[in-house]
Amino acid sequence: MGKATASLEHLFRVFTKPEGKDSKLAQIEEHLSDNLSDFLSQHVVTKAKSLEEIEQNFQDYKVPESPEFVTKHAEVLLEKVVSHSVNTYAPTFIGHMTSALPYFHLPLAKLLVGLNQNLVKIETSKAFTPLERQVIGMLHELVYSQSEDFYKSHLHSAKQSLGAFCSGGTVANITALWVARNKALAPNGKFRGVAQQGLAAGLKHYGYESMGILSSKRGHYSLSKAVDVLGLGREQMLTIDCLTQRLSPEKALAAGREFEQRGNKLLALVGIAGTTETGHVDPLDELADVAKELNCHFHVDAAWGGATLFSQRYKDKLKGIQKADSVTLDAHKQMYVPMGAGMVVFKNPEDSNAVRHHAQYILRAGSKDLGATTLEGSRNGMAMMVYASFNIFGRQGYELLIDQSIEKAHAFAQLIEEHEDFELITAPTLSLLTYRVKPSFVDAHCSKQSELLDKLNVAVQKQQREAGKSFVSRTRLAVEKYGLNPLTVFRVVLANPLTTEQDLINILQEQLQIAKLTKSWKELEDQALAQLKRSVG
Amino acid sequence: MGKATASLEHLFRVFTKPEGKDSKLAQIEEHLSDNLSDFLSQHVVTKAKSLEEIEQNFQDYKVPESPEFVTKHAEVLLEKVVSHSVNTYAPTFIGHMTSALPYFHLPLAKLLVGLNQNLVKIETSKAFTPLERQVIGMLHELVYSQSEDFYKSHLHSAKQSLGAFCSGGTVANITALWVARNKALAPNGKFRGVAQQGLAAGLKHYGYESMGILSSKRGHYSLSKAVDVLGLGREQMLTIDCLTQRLSPEKALAAGREFEQRGNKLLALVGIAGTTETGHVDPLDELADVAKELNCHFHVDAAWGGATLFSQRYKDKLKGIQKADSVTLDAHKQMYVPMGAGMVVFKNPEDSNAVRHHAQYILRAGSKDLGATTLEGSRNGMAMMVYASFNIFGRQGYELLIDQSIEKAHAFAQLIEEHEDFELITAPTLSLLTYRVKPSFVDAHCSKQSELLDKLNVAVQKQQREAGKSFVSRTRLAVEKYGLNPLTVFRVVLANPLTTEQDLINILQEQLQIAKLTKSWKELEDQALAQLKRSVG
Repeated sequence: MGKATASLEHLFRVFTKPEGKDSKLAQIEEHLSDNLSDFLSQHVVTKAKSLEEIEQNFQDYKVPESPEFVTKHAEVLLEKVVSHSVNTYAPTFIGHMTSALPYFHLPLAKLLVGLNQNLVKIETSKAFTPLERQVIGMLHELVYSQSEDFYKSHLHSAKQSLGAFCSGGTVANITALWVARNKALAPNGKFRGVAQQGLAAGLKHYGYESMGILSSKRGHYSLSKAVDVLGLGREQMLTIDCLTQRLSPEKALAAGREFEQRGNKLLALVGIAGTTETGHVDPLDELADVAKELNCHFHVDAAWGGATLFSQRYKDKLKGIQKADSVTLDAHKQMYVPMGAGMVVFKNPEDSNAVRHHAQYILRAGSKDLGATTLEGSRNGMAMMVYASFNIFGRQGYELLIDQSIEKAHAFAQLIEEHEDFELITAPTLSLLTYRVKPSFVDAHCSKQSELLDKLNVAVQKQQREAGKSFVSRTRLAVEKYGLNPLTVFRVVLANPLTTEQDLINILQEQLQIAKLTKSWKELEDQALAQLKRSVG
Repeated sequence: MGKATASLEHLFRVFTKPEGKDSKLAQIEEHLSDNLSDFLSQHVVTKAKSLEEIEQNFQDYKVPESPEFVTKHAEVLLEKVVSHSVNTYAPTFIGHMTSALPYFHLPLAKLLVGLNQNLVKIETSKAFTPLERQVIGMLHELVYSQSEDFYKSHLHSAKQSLGAFCSGGTVANITALWVARNKALAPNGKFRGVAQQGLAAGLKHYGYESMGILSSKRGHYSLSKAVDVLGLGREQMLTIDCLTQRLSPEKALAAGREFEQRGNKLLALVGIAGTTETGHVDPLDELADVAKELNCHFHVDAAWGGATLFSQRYKDKLKGIQKADSVTLDAHKQMYVPMGAGMVVFKNPEDSNAVRHHAQYILRAGSKDLGATTLEGSRNGMAMMVYASFNIFGRQGYELLIDQSIEKAHAFAQLIEEHEDFELITAPTLSLLTYRVKPSFVDAHCSKQSELLDKLNVAVQKQQREAGKSFVSRTRLAVEKYGLNPLTVFRVVLANPLTTEQDLINILQEQLQIAKLTKSWKELEDQALAQLKRSVG
């Protein structure tokens, strides 16, 4: 059943004739288009199966021998895939950076696949090439605000590039540090450059023991992927403790100097504009000075926080970002574009040439083919989604979205602070905050109770996630108030414009209900009671 | 006009209410769904503007200040973007590897964006994680055909991975060589491994001058990106001339030995299964032996040719591929999935651990989070498109598609050979071939006429592309018959199942018409006439 015959006629139909209007796939599509929220509530099962149960649906390890009718497969997709996916559109899914998207991306996604361009080369992308360059130029302008003349000469130049479009922030960060590495070990005298001769020859020529990158402990894991892939080694990823969640410029300078005194070269200092865990912004302006002092590349990872630049009220939180040599921004985060739109912009458009590649049949020298200066080769036309979003939202639209997110985070922080059984751990800089359940009777500085608190918070987060109504994430974090021992905390990202204050109140209530039924809560109560008895006794 | 007011109400509508059924965007969508081919013929202008003209539409370098109505923007998209994109669906677009896609991908693209999962982590992807692992397992089985027990223990193992899903073949190749590098410079005694200590320390510990990669001159440009980004240096990308378009195992062995005699270590030998330029397949079986002899990693870049394994009739062309340590395959090429679906599979599931990364808030140790062993971080659910295609086509469906492509290529080769004014340059191994216009009166071995021939072929390719009815690509290629001097040739990829033999006949006719009107044709005629006179005189 559901098996189709493998005939060329059948196959050609799949390429030339859409499914009928009454087919299952057409029904799915209509439901999606009419009411995405309703489609998801209806098809994504709220009571989650365990991963092991879900895996049972994905045990076949051979490509099926016979074809299957599209309609039959549409049912399989609903049953096996959609039902056990994550409802990222839900206003109560506030645990990660993936949020509801505007409706217009649904038809645009279809247009994108209908056009199926390949941006590696103009011959397979035409208008998409200048479109992508324009999008990157707009982000460049958002960060660096250069003159009209600057953009006129660089936006569509075959000789330079203002940045690179990437599948995500990780590739963007790797690209930035790749550029930095190739610039730091540039051709010099008889040395033909690291891109040509390799890293060992480069270090030797310049007389460096090794090269490192410096960021706070809150730096994204992509930085450690970058130092691995670029050949620097993860031990050269220098991270600095930050109980305040922000990198101290003094500590950064001291660490950089100490590293260089040992015969090494600091390749890049990385400032973070919106850490993944708490949303904090490093003191970019001061860090820019440190980078200057250390004569190294200054990269800012603004994958999350970059969109704050749209807001007149809050953009100062990123003060100094325009001093960065390179900046990573993810449009699939606070710019409300579907997953797959990371970008890096370079202050100096020459920088992209540090990684320029050519090939005869493709990416000919002198062409504007995008593949010549990107890490990736073949890529789809995601830039169109960014282009549409920039135009449809406008700067003012983004400003409203950013402002309301930050203000909602402040309102939520206040709710937490006013509640006797919760503790705010990190207040929001942008729209992220962390907190935990801490029953009013608990002494969190007591190490025994602190351990139990961690257990309690792990249990609450897990059970809430499994109940399926709402989702906050959790992490472990060291904070000033409690010293170097990390605590287990809830992490909340208030990016979804559809999340209401009532949703947040409900999430707290649900957490408290769950907490009160845990063994840890009971144990904490017993301990508190015993302590009370002792102190009274 | 077209400008919307920036109000939260307006913005919320964009997130919660689809465009009306009569809106421009809904019209576009309906047209796309009803008849993609008609939509494209109607909206993609056939007479191409120059890139410089198209760039005029993309001059703004600031994100627009005010929002724009979706309907207004839909018109902009049609006018500025769609009209000047490339019609990759057209049966006469046979110049690159991007082809028509089956219809079901249109609604699936919408579903993908509606779900907007992030595959970096199970918490944001749930069923998509085992789905992606299954898809990779199926490709692993296609290449390596291991036992049921093997797949039972590895398909969903938290400790290993059968491969990595990537945005494309370039990232897949880089990932494979990253793994190879980290394995070759693995922890050893006091040395903590290249991933930890870096490349220079690794080379020093193992006593290597440098490390290189070897492939034929037809290797994809992504290999040279890989040696750059991985720190080996592009001079360590050893390429071997191949007038036969295939890497000679003897030459490979000799070059590898010579490289190692100079104190270097050959990191990897790369065999190509379907070169980008001519579709040739290296002698993989023999190259596997060479790699064994040289004790190096054997990687096969089967981005294009991998799908041939679906065909009982032609899979032997890839004989020996199962001996590779790693294999790259692109589902967005001959598996008819939209752009953005590259994969690498590893023979040994342990290999992925050479690049494993963890982070506290994400990718916890022991979890099955996909981001722990991929170069990329956040990624979308493209694996669903591969999953759907595997099920809907089945192995038999793909076999029919592959067989007819290869047979069409042979039929086209015969058409060319039978035509007195064309010359077949490389016959098809898979569904690629190269040829050129060569008027019957030309002596192509005469260097003066050979230069004119190149000019003629450049002109024909350009003019045909600009005329907009059909598109073949061009490249420069050295072939046995004409020695080391590269010729300009047309390159044809017969991947689109909708391309008919009549289309191919028309393409040749159009090329001949264009050719006869060029200056070069006239000059070639004059030369031939002069020569004739001399010989008669």
